[in-house]
Amino acid sequence: MSYSIHIDQFVTKEILLEHLYFDKDKPNWIPYRTSYYQKNWAFCVSFNDLEKFKEAEYHVVIKAEFIETSLEIGDLFFKGKSESEIVFTTYVCHPSMANNELSGPVVLNAIAKYVSSLDNYYSYRFLFWPETIGAIAYLSQELDNLRRNVVAGFVVTCVGDNRAWGYIPSRTGITLPDWISKRVLKRELKNFTEYSFLDRGSDERQLCSPSVDLPFASITRSKYGTYPEYHTSGDDLNFISSESLQESIDLFSKIIDEFESNRVYISIKMGEPMYSKYALRSGLGGSPTLSKLESQYTNIAALSDGSLDTFEISEILQQPHIHISNLCEKLRELGILKLL
Amino acid sequence: MSYSIHIDQFVTKEILLEHLYFDKDKPNWIPYRTSYYQKNWAFCVSFNDLEKFKEAEYHVVIKAEFIETSLEIGDLFFKGKSESEIVFTTYVCHPSMANNELSGPVVLNAIAKYVSSLDNYYSYRFLFWPETIGAIAYLSQELDNLRRNVVAGFVVTCVGDNRAWGYIPSRTGITLPDWISKRVLKRELKNFTEYSFLDRGSDERQLCSPSVDLPFASITRSKYGTYPEYHTSGDDLNFISSESLQESIDLFSKIIDEFESNRVYISIKMGEPMYSKYALRSGLGGSPTLSKLESQYTNIAALSDGSLDTFEISEILQQPHIHISNLCEKLRELGILKLL
Amino acid sequence: MSYSIHIDQFVTKEILLEHLYFDKDKPNWIPYRTSYYQKNWAFCVSFNDLEKFKEAEYHVVIKAEFIETSLEIGDLFFKGKSESEIVFTTYVCHPSMANNELSGPVVLNAIAKYVSSLDNYYSYRFLFWPETIGAIAYLSQELDNLRRNVVAGFVVTCVGDNRAWGYIPSRTGITLPDWISKRVLKRELKNFTEYSFLDRGSDERQLCSPSVDLPFASITRSKYGTYPEYHTSGDDLNFISSESLQESIDLFSKIIDEFESNRVYISIKMGEPMYSKYALRSGLGGSPTLSKLESQYTNIAALSDGSLDTFEISEILQQPHIHISNLCEKLRELGILKLL
Repeated sequence: MSYSIHIDQFVTKEILLEHLYFDKDKPNWIPYRTSYYQKNWAFCVSFNDLEKFKEAEYHVVIKAEFIETSLEIGDLFFKGKSESEIVFTTYVCHPSMANNELSGPVVLNAIAKYVSSLDNYYSYRFLFWPETIGAIAYLSQELDNLRRNVVAGFVVTCVGDNRAWGYIPSRTGITLPDWISKRVLKRELKNFTEYSFLDRGSDERQLCSPSVDLPFASITRSKYGTYPEYHTSGDDLNFISSESLQESIDLFSKIIDEFESNRVYISIKMGEPMYSKYALRSGLGGSPTLSKLESQYTNIAALSDGSLDTFEISEILQQPHIHISNLCEKLRELGILKLL
Repeated sequence: MSYSIHIDQFVTKEILLEHLYFDKDKPNWIPYRTSYYQKNWAFCVSFNDLEKFKEAEYHVVIKAEFIETSLEIGDLFFKGKSESEIVFTTYVCHPSMANNELSGPVVLNAIAKYVSSLDNYYSYRFLFWPETIGAIAYLSQELDNLRRNVVAGFVVTCVGDNRAWGYIPSRTGITLPDWISKRVLKRELKNFTEYSFLDRGSDERQLCSPSVDLPFASITRSKYGTYPEYHTSGDDLNFISSESLQESIDLFSKIIDEFESNRVYISIKMGEPMYSKYALRSGLGGSPTLSKLESQYTNIAALSDGSLDTFEISEILQQPHIHISNLCEKLRELGILKLL
Repeated sequence: MSYSIHIDQFVTKEILLEHLYFDKDKPNWIPYRTSYYQKNWAFCVSFNDLEKFKEAEYHVVIKAEFIETSLEIGDLFFKGKSESEIVFTTYVCHPSMANNELSGPVVLNAIAKYVSSLDNYYSYRFLFWPETIGAIAYLSQELDNLRRNVVAGFVVTCVGDNRAWGYIPSRTGITLPDWISKRVLKRELKNFTEYSFLDRGSDERQLCSPSVDLPFASITRSKYGTYPEYHTSGDDLNFISSESLQESIDLFSKIIDEFESNRVYISIKMGEPMYSKYALRSGLGGSPTLSKLESQYTNIAALSDGSLDTFEISEILQQPHIHISNLCEKLRELGILKLL
């Protein structure tokens, strides 16, 4: 049992059994239990192993020490052109479990690497901490900074298996990471579960609490608490796979792309630009219809009134965002749009 | 006929017939007619009784006198901890009819008694007046006070029969008594008719008129104008029953409970409280799921951001309001929530 | 080809063919093509006529001259009691085509005549210009005036055939001409197509562009680009009919009626007026239900809180607007309502 006290003594089988955690319903797996604040000693064992305890007396040994030290938090920061921050958090307190939790640091590490390869517009922060207590400690020192800069955050956990995808909204469900998550998940995945904020269970408990109120959502594969292997020895390296981890890395990379490529443009010209002058339309008039591209250029400029970002325009025009972004940049270079 | 003038004279059968009101379609019942401002004399009779008028001449006698006096209004007030008032009105102008109208004063009397038994938070006012003219007279003197204090009001009429339940909204349909009525009716009844404001017909005609604009809704059993016995001698003590009256009293008591128990709390703690410290959660960590109660405590605190009242939280968590209110009070006593 | 340059020379059949526009898919019809800014010469011919070109050499003659002159715009204005303007625009640049475009000026002329017969409350402006360039020229001089006064505008084009009706919204889709168009079209027509702003293609490209942003919608019969005859010699006087033109005139007249008759009234009386005093209700009380008209009067006054116009009240009461407007005027004359 995590956070067990030190013990070195002989006990009867009866006493020992009182200090064993097991789960009859999952007889092959050793459950994960912890006791942070109640001082006690215990072992976690599989139900099937219980029968091995046949002796009348046991020598119980746990070599543990509670020492006063500081809490270490990994805080990896990539400065962008903008002060606005996108934050990814994960936790590192029981890495013996694979999906929940080792997958989180693995994926965070990979997407941090991805960000380091970008000429990034936004600033990015990657936080590795012990769940709950790490978040609280960090918030106690950094809340003001986070409030000033964070435009969107994601709690990254349970991202290594291949059974499911899920999205857990922020408290209000209408913050920026909510829009982005739903947009990218709908576009990239065949299927994902939209959980309620009531289903939350990781560091969004701190980050989205009423008095902290930061814009954080969470994207998971099989969510904590929803798969039988959760918090047992069954959540091991066989449960996750490098393919699934790579899919998660790709998905978060697409979320980063989504942020990096979103802009608000505004039309400069009075009335519709004369597109033929810019070689964006044929000089011959009278064709009954515009080409798809001609139509996209004119619709982009007509919609760029400062109230719609490139995401929204790409959804209105039902086009990939990257395509619309490219057309916007072209129109900006031609002096038809400007960045807001 | 109500408000008939004094008469004592001999008239021919022909003249008499011109002064008889009856209803062919409801031959057994005597219709109710009144003439407040047109001075006239008349009798109301059942269609079946018409054949009894066989004489050529009749001695017509109505002993009536119009005297100058004052209009009396029953105004029963229970001061609560708050100045905010919940108002119930009913009318006492033609109590010969049972559902419309005697049931109103009976029910109002009973719920006033219920309020008197409470350590009430809100103030309550019960108004008994002649329909229309009583409301107008009261408004002419008390409108400013009502505007300052009334948070919700209910016109109580036609609450004695067992055929139906109905709700008539305020003009906008989005005032506090609208929310409360719909919430309680949906929870407590199998079925009720949601009328339109256009179907109104009692003192909400005054109370909800544009220039008065007080937040009043109405809850009825068989609504005036919708049942054949309405405004006839058929609306008698056989049409209503003590069981139905009791059901109405119970429903209005539940509406009062709903008001009395609704509060807005706000979370005090930075981040999620450490529930194990308050004995609201086990100190042992790692169990895959929280118990239902553990989950309710944590969700209540996470939702208490000052924008949701206990009603709304109880609906989000799909729990009885009284249960959520009790948990809120517990969290308040523990210093996790405070009253807004 | 419109805007062809001057030419008078002998060319081979090969060269000539390079300067012929035709449409294989519509072999009987001569396509319409224009070249405003690319200096070139060309002819438009039907595909079926191509075979007539059998000679080896041709004498090509186009007598054309580009002269510097001014752009003429028809600007017909009817001053009303109010400065607020309703604007109708149409274009006069290729009147050889019947539905797109001759129908527009014909209908505009007729509805201008209709307005001249009214004692109009709103001011009306009718603009006849060459498409695109006329709109741009007018906006370059009159935008400030238009912004100050225009409350609604309509681009009138393709209003002569009988195959379809269509409505093209403004950029936001929530401007006054949008509400009015949808209301009248839904009431008057069995069927009409609700296009998207993305389907726009006439002068709303200028009038609704982000930097101009005037409230313009468009109502059409067969919309430009959606019928095979569009921009060909097939769009001739056989394609349109006087019946269809008259239907369009009638529809726009009803839109004008809709504007002319819409008002906001507000109830003056404290509480419900005593309708019997105004002879709007019987003095005899007790009838179970109000007559339809009694009910309409009382509902109008009860709804006239300044937030609803007569359109909206007529929709709430499911009555023709003109009927509700008449009842409102009656109530205004009686001192029960006043104009806001």
